[in-house]
Amino acid sequence: MDVITTRELKERLSELQGQEVTLRGWIRNHRKQKNMGFIDFFDGTCFKNPQVVYDGSIANFETIQAFRVGSAVRVSGKVVPSYKDPTTPEIQAAEILLEGDCPEDYPLQPKKHSLEFLREIAYLRPRTRLFQAVFRIRSVAAMAIHTYFQDRGYVYVHTPLITANDAEGAGNTFTVTTLPLGEKPDFSQDFFGKQTALAVSGQLEGETFAMAFSNIYTFGPTFRAENSNTKTHAAEFWMIEPEIAFCDLDHLMDIEEDFLKSIVRYVLDRCPDELAFLDQFTGGGLLDKLTSLTESHFARITHEEAITILRGAMEKGTQFQFEPQYGGDTAKEHEKYLTEEYFHSPVLVYDWPKEIKSFYMYQNDDGKTVRGVDLLVPGAGELMGGSQREDRYERLTQRMDELGISKETMDWYVNLRKFGGCTHAGFGMGFERLLIYLTGVENIRDVIPYFRTPQNCDF
Amino acid sequence: MDVITTRELKERLSELQGQEVTLRGWIRNHRKQKNMGFIDFFDGTCFKNPQVVYDGSIANFETIQAFRVGSAVRVSGKVVPSYKDPTTPEIQAAEILLEGDCPEDYPLQPKKHSLEFLREIAYLRPRTRLFQAVFRIRSVAAMAIHTYFQDRGYVYVHTPLITANDAEGAGNTFTVTTLPLGEKPDFSQDFFGKQTALAVSGQLEGETFAMAFSNIYTFGPTFRAENSNTKTHAAEFWMIEPEIAFCDLDHLMDIEEDFLKSIVRYVLDRCPDELAFLDQFTGGGLLDKLTSLTESHFARITHEEAITILRGAMEKGTQFQFEPQYGGDTAKEHEKYLTEEYFHSPVLVYDWPKEIKSFYMYQNDDGKTVRGVDLLVPGAGELMGGSQREDRYERLTQRMDELGISKETMDWYVNLRKFGGCTHAGFGMGFERLLIYLTGVENIRDVIPYFRTPQNCDF
Repeated sequence: MDVITTRELKERLSELQGQEVTLRGWIRNHRKQKNMGFIDFFDGTCFKNPQVVYDGSIANFETIQAFRVGSAVRVSGKVVPSYKDPTTPEIQAAEILLEGDCPEDYPLQPKKHSLEFLREIAYLRPRTRLFQAVFRIRSVAAMAIHTYFQDRGYVYVHTPLITANDAEGAGNTFTVTTLPLGEKPDFSQDFFGKQTALAVSGQLEGETFAMAFSNIYTFGPTFRAENSNTKTHAAEFWMIEPEIAFCDLDHLMDIEEDFLKSIVRYVLDRCPDELAFLDQFTGGGLLDKLTSLTESHFARITHEEAITILRGAMEKGTQFQFEPQYGGDTAKEHEKYLTEEYFHSPVLVYDWPKEIKSFYMYQNDDGKTVRGVDLLVPGAGELMGGSQREDRYERLTQRMDELGISKETMDWYVNLRKFGGCTHAGFGMGFERLLIYLTGVENIRDVIPYFRTPQNCDF
Repeated sequence: MDVITTRELKERLSELQGQEVTLRGWIRNHRKQKNMGFIDFFDGTCFKNPQVVYDGSIANFETIQAFRVGSAVRVSGKVVPSYKDPTTPEIQAAEILLEGDCPEDYPLQPKKHSLEFLREIAYLRPRTRLFQAVFRIRSVAAMAIHTYFQDRGYVYVHTPLITANDAEGAGNTFTVTTLPLGEKPDFSQDFFGKQTALAVSGQLEGETFAMAFSNIYTFGPTFRAENSNTKTHAAEFWMIEPEIAFCDLDHLMDIEEDFLKSIVRYVLDRCPDELAFLDQFTGGGLLDKLTSLTESHFARITHEEAITILRGAMEKGTQFQFEPQYGGDTAKEHEKYLTEEYFHSPVLVYDWPKEIKSFYMYQNDDGKTVRGVDLLVPGAGELMGGSQREDRYERLTQRMDELGISKETMDWYVNLRKFGGCTHAGFGMGFERLLIYLTGVENIRDVIPYFRTPQNCDF
């Protein structure tokens, strides 16, 4: 009898009904009655797992009744319909063998554990139902992203993680070195012969590939040495950064909208059980939020229009902690108002004041704004940040001079504007921010397998 | 008239034949005759690109004739069959507009450039035909890997890159720090409150997820601060590390064989033009090598058998620089002999002397060997290294003690053997090593967008 996974069992359920199968996995819970036992069994290949039932007729009944939560077992038996749920099979066990024991003091007992406690045992938490749902969605969402871009001919580019170019990350980067610490550093003796740090973005290198392949995307880790202990900051996280040649701001907004809807649809289609669980776990509303996103039309307003709306709301009595300013950034409360109160949909806010945006954004003729765009979504705030890039050599280098960014060390970047430059645009999306949105889980520490935050680098 | 990509043009060629289209891309070469011009046009979305032909009837004929190599252009015209190749379209241009100029001294001229020179202009080399082929194959092969695992229910896990756990990498790791260099380091004041480094593998964390999801894989960057300037070493590269619960060494070898054949088939199917070009560029034999791999049966021999074969070959007159030793590692020349001379196929060599393999490999009863396996392939040597993992707590901790690896700081890893441990196995494959195999390109510097090697951290 071949060993199958619970995923195969679910996929071939009608065919296997009444058949003998063998499964290997773990005991999540074990309820015992005098002449019977019920094992919540899982192997992690499928979210909805079979219940294993055995009775007094099984060999070694007493031995089996002593099997503890957390143990690895091999179960053989007949597939029968479940009383409770016809889509979830039940196994009438003919044999249950212990593969790996588990002690009485196993930390993961079948009771409610706090998220904080589960972070301390991050190497065991993927065995819980919550993290089975979260980390499978993480995997499926990653595949959704690759599928979206590859189906459309984008080339996946691995931009470098170790970099000597810190135009964007000044002050917030991790030093990478092989020099002995404690001695006066001589960077000519360092591994790369110069001072290096972990990259905060792959965009600039991504642009070089967009000027060769037209459509490219990156999907890799990114690092910020920001000393902030918030629910949404991690020192190590994954980013997606597509870059598109012959694309202006309007076209970029089309792509952002289409991309996000596709990803959400892909995950809705493939993780219904996980999302149903998370919907309940997070208090309801998750499935509605995701479904309505796929059907919504994203509003598009300029930053100036956004501020006008927000100031109008204040005049009509809405209370904001921070006053919306025409020249300034928006706060979380403003984003919330725009998406949840005013538009009831995602909102693309574009044409931002140039002072609060990056040097590489295309400068509008008004001399004040740049063609940047932030995508705000209900329930999660800013999800993507993008822009049409400044492709005019003079404008770009002038802005770099104003901001004190070296044209010389970045010559390869500015040269893109000399060597067959073209209108191009791209955006960045933090993968964990997407996952917070998709799972309803609030803390970034709970959507990363092993989170890295200030004072935390365990496992 | 909508702008289309050359990829769309190729896909819809029969439908678009005789129609007007608009394309945007770059000039790779421009040959001028008195009353005509021929532009090798590319936009990077497709390897086989259309030739753009214009004649004296086009408006601004002289202006267009002055368009230089490297410039970005917008071309409108009629799709007509090519004389040379019916699968490659030709565009009879009605209009050619300059989008981005390019100077006379553009480094990428239509002539043969050395690979060394192209490394110096790594930000421009993706525009060459060679690197269009290499980096598209890199992207497609990445997708092949994700598709293989996701289709089979594996969960994609992002293991951490910054780590405080250096069991595997002692001495070869990059330090990651926010401490000021030059002062005596107080790691309690460092970002994570302890000494950290860049990870050399995600396997150990991968095992924790395999004990929850049964089948998982990682695919992410890895770092080695090894001061070796060879064709196959880089300081930053990407690794794939699947880990499978309830899997022994035999089953692992089945997976390795099936996995590699699937990846090669996927790339053969999707990149015929790129591979045909590389086949020619690398002197022939690449396509034969890849096709025969998909049809071959991988030989399986123990390390002892391998040494016996090699020593037998020596006795019959084969010259080796290094004598094959029963207790020792194999050299490149030995791998070459086994795959290319003896078996004429990939070879899985298993049951290695424990002294030359890692602490986590399953110890055989002979007290001398462990259940490790190396996959050797013709033309590239070692491509994967894997093992059944030591799942017996006592054996594992005893081996760690022998090797001076701390059980205490790795308690989460050894605990996997206490908390429902099971037979499990996994392998690691360097992505760039796969790409060297797939593309026939010899130097790792030429299959990574921006390579990091000793003294090299540009762009």
